[in-house]
Amino acid sequence: MSKIIGESLKNMPWQEKPEGLNAPVWRYSANPIIERHAIPNSNSVFNSAVVPFEGGFAGVFRCDSRSVSMDIFAGFSDDGVNWNINHEPIQFEGDEEIIKREYRYDPRVSKIGDRYYITWCNGYHGPTIGIAYTTDFKTFHQLENAFLPYNRNGVLFPRKIGDYYAMVSRPSDTGHTPFGDIFYSVSPDLTFWGKHRYVMGTINGDESAWQSKKIGPGPVPIEIDKGWLLIYHGVINTCNGFVYRMGCALLDINEPWKVLARSRNYILGPETLYECVGDVPNVTFPCAALTDADTGRIAIYYGCADTVTGLAFTTVDELLDYMEKYPLEA
Amino acid sequence: MSKIIGESLKNMPWQEKPEGLNAPVWRYSANPIIERHAIPNSNSVFNSAVVPFEGGFAGVFRCDSRSVSMDIFAGFSDDGVNWNINHEPIQFEGDEEIIKREYRYDPRVSKIGDRYYITWCNGYHGPTIGIAYTTDFKTFHQLENAFLPYNRNGVLFPRKIGDYYAMVSRPSDTGHTPFGDIFYSVSPDLTFWGKHRYVMGTINGDESAWQSKKIGPGPVPIEIDKGWLLIYHGVINTCNGFVYRMGCALLDINEPWKVLARSRNYILGPETLYECVGDVPNVTFPCAALTDADTGRIAIYYGCADTVTGLAFTTVDELLDYMEKYPLEA
Amino acid sequence: MSKIIGESLKNMPWQEKPEGLNAPVWRYSANPIIERHAIPNSNSVFNSAVVPFEGGFAGVFRCDSRSVSMDIFAGFSDDGVNWNINHEPIQFEGDEEIIKREYRYDPRVSKIGDRYYITWCNGYHGPTIGIAYTTDFKTFHQLENAFLPYNRNGVLFPRKIGDYYAMVSRPSDTGHTPFGDIFYSVSPDLTFWGKHRYVMGTINGDESAWQSKKIGPGPVPIEIDKGWLLIYHGVINTCNGFVYRMGCALLDINEPWKVLARSRNYILGPETLYECVGDVPNVTFPCAALTDADTGRIAIYYGCADTVTGLAFTTVDELLDYMEKYPLEA
Amino acid sequence: MSKIIGESLKNMPWQEKPEGLNAPVWRYSANPIIERHAIPNSNSVFNSAVVPFEGGFAGVFRCDSRSVSMDIFAGFSDDGVNWNINHEPIQFEGDEEIIKREYRYDPRVSKIGDRYYITWCNGYHGPTIGIAYTTDFKTFHQLENAFLPYNRNGVLFPRKIGDYYAMVSRPSDTGHTPFGDIFYSVSPDLTFWGKHRYVMGTINGDESAWQSKKIGPGPVPIEIDKGWLLIYHGVINTCNGFVYRMGCALLDINEPWKVLARSRNYILGPETLYECVGDVPNVTFPCAALTDADTGRIAIYYGCADTVTGLAFTTVDELLDYMEKYPLEA
Amino acid sequence: MSKIIGESLKNMPWQEKPEGLNAPVWRYSANPIIERHAIPNSNSVFNSAVVPFEGGFAGVFRCDSRSVSMDIFAGFSDDGVNWNINHEPIQFEGDEEIIKREYRYDPRVSKIGDRYYITWCNGYHGPTIGIAYTTDFKTFHQLENAFLPYNRNGVLFPRKIGDYYAMVSRPSDTGHTPFGDIFYSVSPDLTFWGKHRYVMGTINGDESAWQSKKIGPGPVPIEIDKGWLLIYHGVINTCNGFVYRMGCALLDINEPWKVLARSRNYILGPETLYECVGDVPNVTFPCAALTDADTGRIAIYYGCADTVTGLAFTTVDELLDYMEKYPLEA
Amino acid sequence: MSKIIGESLKNMPWQEKPEGLNAPVWRYSANPIIERHAIPNSNSVFNSAVVPFEGGFAGVFRCDSRSVSMDIFAGFSDDGVNWNINHEPIQFEGDEEIIKREYRYDPRVSKIGDRYYITWCNGYHGPTIGIAYTTDFKTFHQLENAFLPYNRNGVLFPRKIGDYYAMVSRPSDTGHTPFGDIFYSVSPDLTFWGKHRYVMGTINGDESAWQSKKIGPGPVPIEIDKGWLLIYHGVINTCNGFVYRMGCALLDINEPWKVLARSRNYILGPETLYECVGDVPNVTFPCAALTDADTGRIAIYYGCADTVTGLAFTTVDELLDYMEKYPLEA
Repeated sequence: MSKIIGESLKNMPWQEKPEGLNAPVWRYSANPIIERHAIPNSNSVFNSAVVPFEGGFAGVFRCDSRSVSMDIFAGFSDDGVNWNINHEPIQFEGDEEIIKREYRYDPRVSKIGDRYYITWCNGYHGPTIGIAYTTDFKTFHQLENAFLPYNRNGVLFPRKIGDYYAMVSRPSDTGHTPFGDIFYSVSPDLTFWGKHRYVMGTINGDESAWQSKKIGPGPVPIEIDKGWLLIYHGVINTCNGFVYRMGCALLDINEPWKVLARSRNYILGPETLYECVGDVPNVTFPCAALTDADTGRIAIYYGCADTVTGLAFTTVDELLDYMEKYPLEA
Repeated sequence: MSKIIGESLKNMPWQEKPEGLNAPVWRYSANPIIERHAIPNSNSVFNSAVVPFEGGFAGVFRCDSRSVSMDIFAGFSDDGVNWNINHEPIQFEGDEEIIKREYRYDPRVSKIGDRYYITWCNGYHGPTIGIAYTTDFKTFHQLENAFLPYNRNGVLFPRKIGDYYAMVSRPSDTGHTPFGDIFYSVSPDLTFWGKHRYVMGTINGDESAWQSKKIGPGPVPIEIDKGWLLIYHGVINTCNGFVYRMGCALLDINEPWKVLARSRNYILGPETLYECVGDVPNVTFPCAALTDADTGRIAIYYGCADTVTGLAFTTVDELLDYMEKYPLEA
Repeated sequence: MSKIIGESLKNMPWQEKPEGLNAPVWRYSANPIIERHAIPNSNSVFNSAVVPFEGGFAGVFRCDSRSVSMDIFAGFSDDGVNWNINHEPIQFEGDEEIIKREYRYDPRVSKIGDRYYITWCNGYHGPTIGIAYTTDFKTFHQLENAFLPYNRNGVLFPRKIGDYYAMVSRPSDTGHTPFGDIFYSVSPDLTFWGKHRYVMGTINGDESAWQSKKIGPGPVPIEIDKGWLLIYHGVINTCNGFVYRMGCALLDINEPWKVLARSRNYILGPETLYECVGDVPNVTFPCAALTDADTGRIAIYYGCADTVTGLAFTTVDELLDYMEKYPLEA
Repeated sequence: MSKIIGESLKNMPWQEKPEGLNAPVWRYSANPIIERHAIPNSNSVFNSAVVPFEGGFAGVFRCDSRSVSMDIFAGFSDDGVNWNINHEPIQFEGDEEIIKREYRYDPRVSKIGDRYYITWCNGYHGPTIGIAYTTDFKTFHQLENAFLPYNRNGVLFPRKIGDYYAMVSRPSDTGHTPFGDIFYSVSPDLTFWGKHRYVMGTINGDESAWQSKKIGPGPVPIEIDKGWLLIYHGVINTCNGFVYRMGCALLDINEPWKVLARSRNYILGPETLYECVGDVPNVTFPCAALTDADTGRIAIYYGCADTVTGLAFTTVDELLDYMEKYPLEA
Repeated sequence: MSKIIGESLKNMPWQEKPEGLNAPVWRYSANPIIERHAIPNSNSVFNSAVVPFEGGFAGVFRCDSRSVSMDIFAGFSDDGVNWNINHEPIQFEGDEEIIKREYRYDPRVSKIGDRYYITWCNGYHGPTIGIAYTTDFKTFHQLENAFLPYNRNGVLFPRKIGDYYAMVSRPSDTGHTPFGDIFYSVSPDLTFWGKHRYVMGTINGDESAWQSKKIGPGPVPIEIDKGWLLIYHGVINTCNGFVYRMGCALLDINEPWKVLARSRNYILGPETLYECVGDVPNVTFPCAALTDADTGRIAIYYGCADTVTGLAFTTVDELLDYMEKYPLEA
Repeated sequence: MSKIIGESLKNMPWQEKPEGLNAPVWRYSANPIIERHAIPNSNSVFNSAVVPFEGGFAGVFRCDSRSVSMDIFAGFSDDGVNWNINHEPIQFEGDEEIIKREYRYDPRVSKIGDRYYITWCNGYHGPTIGIAYTTDFKTFHQLENAFLPYNRNGVLFPRKIGDYYAMVSRPSDTGHTPFGDIFYSVSPDLTFWGKHRYVMGTINGDESAWQSKKIGPGPVPIEIDKGWLLIYHGVINTCNGFVYRMGCALLDINEPWKVLARSRNYILGPETLYECVGDVPNVTFPCAALTDADTGRIAIYYGCADTVTGLAFTTVDELLDYMEKYPLEA
């Protein structure tokens, strides 16, 4: 059995795997947990990130307004299922040039030491990766953007690797990017970034077509005894648009750009009405995971059809076994 | 409180706003009111236009056949909800060159004096704006096309403005047009058109992204004490296609190309299954509105997913308040 | 009344036409008959082909795996409705160069003499038409690919025509082909193909827009006293993607590239949730038909939303009458 | 022999047809007549229009600046070959909303009565047709734009036809338009336009592929005893871009939307270095013609490679004979 | 030294390699040998094919007319440099369905036994490979099209290989095809084609980018002691369009789909004005080669800028040495 | 008069401005200075960079091979006009992962202290900015790539600004990028990069259309008493492809992301045959500049039509005056 390197989290949301289910990830029975109109002026609440916080849970939420303006909001929960989301978006402190808002979306939250770092897709003459930190989810200090445009889906590792802060991200273009690989970058200070390494890319041909158009990192990587467990999204381009599904990979613990294992099969994809029908049909997009080191349990928070937020469950062993059973050979 | 300049219409369809609803427009509880197979050979009945007529209601309906041929049909109703639509499309009288049918779709009906004018997207070596009138919804006299190709969504004002008939329209291209602004044009005689003025266009950036790809006029503008109240459609381009929503604007009463107010928020968008699932998913497309001058009530008829017809309600004050609460600052 | 030239098939699946239905084809009341997870590792089971076999039924099924790898699988059924599909894909015997698998999808099965010929879209440096035969659905002998790339939807006639084996197919390109016409080709030996003839193409303009973007053959043509009855798919390109519907045509019995009649109306299109919602929304794609010569009954197997398999019923007379009632005049 | 209905113009530029030339149009031997740097800040001087004026010639010239800003300039010449072009663009008087400049290009000049009307592609929230008049080429009075966007190449007939001013034009889209047909429109007053008629379009297939992508009117139509002689441009789309050539057509004298004859062959195309090499290679684009009623001579002014201005010669009989020899049968 | 397996041809055109030239192919000093207006109504004479014939030379020429209609014409020459091309295109005898002309272009001529076979890109509801034969270049017998659409550049080997006629070709799409590989097909009778084998494709990445977009066969393969020497075209896609260059390959003598050697470097590309400037800039496109078995000399006929015809020289040893010096390792 | 902050360079190439020339930059009279076949296996030698070196000049040259493989080569010259370029590309020393070559092109050379830093477009799973240094142009030490893909045109400033090395670059996509702005980034150590600032972008509309599609930095910025003088390239998209021209800007000396002045007019564009005709027509692309502090002279090296290398002259005052005369007001 594999072990999560981390803390125990007894109160994390959980349901047991349904009898007879032939899949490594299962949905929460009362999905979606957050509806599109969860706050007064929201059109949709989806790609969002949560962490344990002061005995309960806190999070940063993507709420598109009814003008379809994209911003990120703080929220709080006792049980990780029922959420109170602030009605006003996060205000940042920092360098005036940097905190100017064009748009903000698809946040992740990574706790490093006693700081909660938020990363997100930040508009700065094109999409790039914004970084900020908070200790209380009230005051947020914004740092330099990590990269030049154009980039989306920057996800910080939960600790330094070697001497460096580490991030995986997906370089992109200015629009509905028709390509996407995952890269690894490091920084001594969260300001200057370098030593960029290619981690993995799309899979050509038929072997694993669900991830043939683009892939990008999802939740903060989970440290386990065997390496870093990365849950990511993969996209196929059908004649009727993109389908977003989830997969997982195991990265080397010290050199995370080395891929030790990777799922040939997706681990979750759009099947329910709330995943298949909405503002952008056929999207399941993971942005956060809660884990319990005692049990190996994982709770995945994911956006559904770019409209609502879903919750799904798995364990470290389920994912590792599944990668082993359906290994990617390409 | 604002006032509609017009007639009272005591028998218009109406339902009160649901308790606690946080939105300016609400759906009819028994939507859709017209199903896709409403007449024997129809594939779909959607973007359609209705008016009060002889104590009840008459209308012109877009019915696509099961060969997916697009034409417009007359129909009648006592209550504005239950409709009898003719099984054969409208036949027009007029100049032989003009009445030749290529295709016809997306009608509007505007009563000016004692004539009911129908405008629609008319195929004439490309889409342009067809015009015809009737007094009885039995005999229809077709006039010259208003413009050169390519144009869609021509909507006549319900009275002359100054010395001229007036129309708002959306110039387009030959296909699934990736742009679209609203222009204002006038005519002394409904044959010759000129004095074209730009009214308003799409909104770049993040402030009001639901109307970032194209916009076009919907129902006949409603005259109120403060100007012309225009309900229009706006489109965003997602990675999985266009989403059509509704917004509103207030235009100057004498110079309607001057925009006095405009909604930053959409007022209705695809959320129900019948709006999100159908031949063209995620479309809510308004083509007509009934109004009651006594109460300020408005009933909007709109196409759903290019498949069925829906009905929704609001009031003049709801719309004006909403524009004031969520003003467009761009 | 028209007659099917063929065998009787008393045990074929059947339901009577619902009262009052105004359409030539009706759905099985318990659709879909095959779910997406019908075998342990399947993501979807859809465009598939069945034939009578040893008193019951056998078939070849497209099952996309949960890595979204496309392959074809044998399966068996007593009643044509409940199916046992093998968990491993078909293995082929034959020339080593030819049996190398890139991908395989959208099979058809045609019985000629005592052999069951399978044709499918076969990856060989691009999509082309693979051919194989079996007598027992256990051992499959693969022959030469019929054509150069790029081609999809090769369908064999169920007997020689003149001295030749005969096939209809749809030449394509390397991607989500934006065009598609049906051609007829013959072969003395199933290895060498020639005498290619254009059969029919898309319909421009408004007369029959559901088949304006591409068309391709569906089930094995049905021999009737008046010619070959061909059920085919037609595609329209909307602003939100392709919609796949079904139509039918009557081809000359000896020179099948001559079209005697063709449906202006589609005979079935996406309307139910399982046809409108899935991995590729709005797809109904027919690949096989069972027929009973005694009664003229036809049971159509069709893929739904590229996700599940549906069953629908009609008769020869329903289709011929419908083509006569809604003739294509272009 | 055909006759030009018009004035004699003894001093128009002229060279005799070269011996043995097998083509209906021949180039001026000292082409190009206007170089790209003809005025101090010009990048290029090309699609331009000239008329007889006060015993010599005047014209309106498209000069793109070295910032590649597009504007139109007045110019004067004694002999029609050597030109003095003003260094500052034309300033217009008129309605403030209308004279606001976005961009201006591709002018034509048509004398009607004692006024010289200039039409051009005028930026007004998209390209449309600007109209202005002058009597002295010093003061220019701008009228309403003729049409809604999007249109290019509006060309006025040199007299009223019936009771109306008449114009041929080419509706377009917002970019490098991939389509283009010629339409006819009329106006009682040059402000309101209507009664739009399709004149002619592109030629599909192989019969006349040089005009398979788009066509548009060139110089002011020439009145002859047999009808209106129209010189126009036609475009083919090669794998390396558009090629612009010239053709001609004969339109009915009273109903000019009726095409009496049309050239299957182009009459001039890019062959010389100054036509094949420049800012936009392979463009010959006619915008004006001088004619002499006494002799039937025609001098065509045309843009070369969007960079310089060329001059070419022909006669009415050359063009009519060529259309008769190479008739378009489509 | 390598040997050509074939006949001697003492009177073939020839010039010695210029001193100091560092390239395997050199141009004829008086290029182009055929001008665009070589026959009365031609716009261009380019991709054309020649063979020895009755002591002199005959050929089939692509002449686009001044309507830019594409057809093929017979022509004759005493010296292979100065050509008399018929003024009317070739008329074919054969099956009525087959000889209907849509368009014809890019011919090749291959002598097999005492027949001269012409293959070309033939319009039959899309481009495919037409085949015909003649013995006298006066009467031409057209056979079945070799393949389904869409295909261009079908080139027959000059003798049977094994029991079969053999052809290399390039499957394509309907337009300016953005892909292209070379395939090998055989036929017992020139009517039925099969046993299709992939020969070689484009080269991704940077190693040999001139052939990164598409490749296709050029002249009839030349039999040498080491195999078949194939001269082919390769295309790169620049931001300003396609550039067509020539390369060569050595194919196995009995299994020509096996590539023994292939040039990494192009052997000729657009450099001169007549290759870089014309209707389609930057095209050098080889369609025929004359060879002399006594000396190993090769004369290549190639289209220049889709406008004129050029001639270039090389030898078998030059090409083999060049492939050896610059081997393709991909 | 403005002053260059730098060294004197008495032996730099120079020609006086031609009499009467109305432009700020003039071509060397014997252009091009480097032909396409300058080294044995080159197809083209163009976007290249030179610096003063040991009393003469050294440089790094983009030479595409005759396989159209892109690499960079060292070269040497006594006079800056006649060049000896090495026949083999530069070999780099460094981290094994980094020095793996995919492709290399468009180099710049910037002397900082006693090191010559080369930057170029470096293939690493997409184009990014490679960095290396040399002191002798024999041994080259490659450092980390500066950024994640996708980026082109990284240009180092010739000294630290504040505490940091500084670079301007153009983020891009994977292909023929249809957008392009200039950004500024800094690094403490040439390995880690951050503090990215937007400098300037394309100009919409008509004011300065030559730079409406993309812009990117050219030579190493020139330090003058008023700031940094940046020569850059700008691109317009015509219907026949991109046209690349040159402009200039003045950046703040300490905060170079602040633009003090910028040319509305281009300063040089394609006009001569060697600029308009070649592998990519209509390209003038500057990559290096020599300067003499004593006289203010500037010699610009630029690629012509992606085929040959040109040389042009100007002075600091010419450029500053021209920006002042034609200021960009957008």
